[in-house]
Amino acid sequence: MTSRLADNIRVVMVETSHPGNIGAAARAMKATGFANLYLVRPGFYPHAQATARAAGAADILDRAVVCDSFAQALQGCVTVAATSARPRRVGPSVYAPREYIPALLENVRQGPVALVFGRESSGLSNAELDYCNVILEIPTQSGFNSLNVASAVQILCYEFSSVLRPAFDEKLPKRLIRPATVEEMAYFYEHLQQVMIATGFLQPQHPKKLMRRLKTLFNRAGLDENELSILRGFLTAVQESINKGD
Amino acid sequence: MTSRLADNIRVVMVETSHPGNIGAAARAMKATGFANLYLVRPGFYPHAQATARAAGAADILDRAVVCDSFAQALQGCVTVAATSARPRRVGPSVYAPREYIPALLENVRQGPVALVFGRESSGLSNAELDYCNVILEIPTQSGFNSLNVASAVQILCYEFSSVLRPAFDEKLPKRLIRPATVEEMAYFYEHLQQVMIATGFLQPQHPKKLMRRLKTLFNRAGLDENELSILRGFLTAVQESINKGD
Repeated sequence: MTSRLADNIRVVMVETSHPGNIGAAARAMKATGFANLYLVRPGFYPHAQATARAAGAADILDRAVVCDSFAQALQGCVTVAATSARPRRVGPSVYAPREYIPALLENVRQGPVALVFGRESSGLSNAELDYCNVILEIPTQSGFNSLNVASAVQILCYEFSSVLRPAFDEKLPKRLIRPATVEEMAYFYEHLQQVMIATGFLQPQHPKKLMRRLKTLFNRAGLDENELSILRGFLTAVQESINKGD
Repeated sequence: MTSRLADNIRVVMVETSHPGNIGAAARAMKATGFANLYLVRPGFYPHAQATARAAGAADILDRAVVCDSFAQALQGCVTVAATSARPRRVGPSVYAPREYIPALLENVRQGPVALVFGRESSGLSNAELDYCNVILEIPTQSGFNSLNVASAVQILCYEFSSVLRPAFDEKLPKRLIRPATVEEMAYFYEHLQQVMIATGFLQPQHPKKLMRRLKTLFNRAGLDENELSILRGFLTAVQESINKGD
């Protein structure tokens, strides 16, 4: 467990193709006071270009955690913020970083918060966005909404740093009620889907985005462990009521 | 339906005892560009002291809507923000106004947002807080956390105005997907409670704050009409599955 506020920020880069971008991101993190870099299936890593672009931030590259899956990179996180330029009809709410980061301070106090940066070419998939609580969209000139991924890391780290800096070295207390983690939410969604299928409400052949819409809702709310256990208890009670009738 | 952004702010004062506070609140609203005042069971109203303290804001008092119930004052609202100094163990999340109001701008674009001010003596009841999506707590010197209610209206209107002013005269588009209103949420909670009782999960003799915790969760998320209709459809499917077994 981490115990310093700044250690609760985790930068997650998904399938970054160009190793130079990884190095530049590490340097941006170091300059703004963040140290935890997670790389999901990087194209080339380690790589001389990453090391060269990292300059004085080699320690961050050395500590970087390379992951096989997106879920693995999010392990233990209580909040997942994606950066994305592509708007979705169904999915997390979109905010400007300056508008929303102050409201995230409390989340950072509660546990690891992931800032997720998608592929250079195609960003994040819908399945990846289903893990995210919020999208932070960096404002750009209209008509030019493609920002280099390392620049996006730089801007987001700068914005987080501006808001968090006064609290950077805050010691984190142990919480009585802790937020649900990404893994616990995954189990809940699995349970919810089973019960929706058992009642006939969700037809696996015609899922109609029901699960995506419900994930969007609950990810937006951000559940704590009590709320999660109430919802799972209710789902279990529904299953028992249905089985009793059989 | 209102069509100007500033008209989507509604100040709701609950059982205000001193009519002078109502007048002062109207004046504070006028100075910051807001016009919609709702009074839930005011102690004395209309009253000469209200008129005197309103000074140039008599038009806001004239238009003020007097309501018999809190629910009536919230009719049509898509978001309800309470101001309160008393922290609750179960209830809406608490934020500093400057921290959170920027994130509310999008809500104001979607429909009426209520800013609720409780009684001078005792603030808001738990049942009233169950309608609220968020608590905005004005920071005060520790040991002196009692602010006059008209001063609280002044500070909140000032903070909202600072954030909203650039967008004050924005024309509001008709939304394809609109947020759920307070009334629709009340029907949903009624439905949820029925189903929780039918499954045996909620025992009316031992409610264990289950409904309060779930209201806190869904109020925090803020549902849109699609999400609400999915959840109600699921509850209906659960009822049908249980009845089929009987």
